[in-house]
Amino acid sequence: MAESRQPQDESTEQYPVSDRNRVRRRHDRGHYDHATVHQLLDAAALAHVAYVIDGQPFCAPTLFWREESRLYWHGSSASRMLRNLSDGERACLTVTHFDSLVLARSGYNHSADYRSVMAFGCARLLEDSEQKAHALAMMVDRFFPGRTASLRPASAQEIKATAVVWMEIEEASAKIRARGVVDDDEDYALPIYAERIPVRTVIGAPAPCARLRPGVARPESLSRYAAGELLEAALSDAWAQTFAERSIPS
Amino acid sequence: MAESRQPQDESTEQYPVSDRNRVRRRHDRGHYDHATVHQLLDAAALAHVAYVIDGQPFCAPTLFWREESRLYWHGSSASRMLRNLSDGERACLTVTHFDSLVLARSGYNHSADYRSVMAFGCARLLEDSEQKAHALAMMVDRFFPGRTASLRPASAQEIKATAVVWMEIEEASAKIRARGVVDDDEDYALPIYAERIPVRTVIGAPAPCARLRPGVARPESLSRYAAGELLEAALSDAWAQTFAERSIPS
Repeated sequence: MAESRQPQDESTEQYPVSDRNRVRRRHDRGHYDHATVHQLLDAAALAHVAYVIDGQPFCAPTLFWREESRLYWHGSSASRMLRNLSDGERACLTVTHFDSLVLARSGYNHSADYRSVMAFGCARLLEDSEQKAHALAMMVDRFFPGRTASLRPASAQEIKATAVVWMEIEEASAKIRARGVVDDDEDYALPIYAERIPVRTVIGAPAPCARLRPGVARPESLSRYAAGELLEAALSDAWAQTFAERSIPS
Repeated sequence: MAESRQPQDESTEQYPVSDRNRVRRRHDRGHYDHATVHQLLDAAALAHVAYVIDGQPFCAPTLFWREESRLYWHGSSASRMLRNLSDGERACLTVTHFDSLVLARSGYNHSADYRSVMAFGCARLLEDSEQKAHALAMMVDRFFPGRTASLRPASAQEIKATAVVWMEIEEASAKIRARGVVDDDEDYALPIYAERIPVRTVIGAPAPCARLRPGVARPESLSRYAAGELLEAALSDAWAQTFAERSIPS
């Protein structure tokens, strides 16, 4: 995992623990400090958001980002999810880094290593035009630092067609398993093969658009997105470049 | 993606389309046929399940697998999710394969390539002891074909402590974007860099347990889980080995 570039006090601040976010099963895997929760969020581009319409739960994948203790995601103003969240519906945004499959000597001890965060709050549409303009820049710059300044400016129609949802994190928990093979003591004597199969999400060779104008080169700011790099390392770095230095401890 | 080994009729059978699963935004990206939906599910180990307790949505990551038109996942009998799902609560299980980040010439056209499935139904605890024994074997064999036969048998206490949830897929939709950079026609003339950054989830070097008995070798059946292989290819193959030949068209 990329090293933390969060302000110092992140390591001691904690999200409140309630019935909602307390890690019950395997509670030794639970973490509530801002540093752990934020680091796992900022190392991801993809989240899954759970929301409810008429009693039916939906689980929708989305690109997202964090700024201080707010989460942001976006989509079309016409989407079902966004229409329903706009008036402050409860939601849960979850990020999971899948680290390995674990093969043990019994079926029961088969497992997986992972790092996940569940964040709870009320999702709302961003209405303030200044905040929306900032968010529309950040939804690009959070992944590709400084890129918005190099782009064709957004049209009024595009701004109107893009809905931005924000959610203040009220409660959050991180859950981490990083133990590999753990068998019952007596099972280690058995002649059974066991292993940890690591899994990682990596960047492939970037493919430039076939219709680039002559002389348009790849910006230096994208250099961390290189073939073979861990996606989470590139994302963590991009987040830190864009936000960390000017982040104000809340 | 691994080629389909599903029975022929999978390509024509469709999940019913309702208000719940119709892909509204970018409806050209929507697919409802069993072949597409099942192939994306069977290429994954990790899903996110949305469920509701007292109006609060939860989004929980879990290992899962499919057998015909049923989805299965498991956990501790003590977990909050499973306690609440046991009496047939509505749920939504989502799988997302994240394929690329897409940098366009405008902020608005920045995007991602992905393949996702949302599956809807009612989640229930598996109570029948014969079905539960089968499921406990499949939760290992689905990932590692034939492995259960090589393991220390499950104890009565382990079987009791493991809850298996199943959900018949009532409705499902797949959503696929695989277009790379798509800009507005007039924007291609701009001197702005644009590219597609591919992302893939790969297997690292398997790490044998440090406490293996002398002479215990890695089984040939694990050979697809090799360093550098795509996780989804290994998972699709394992699924096909375990299920496809004996799958009965429903």
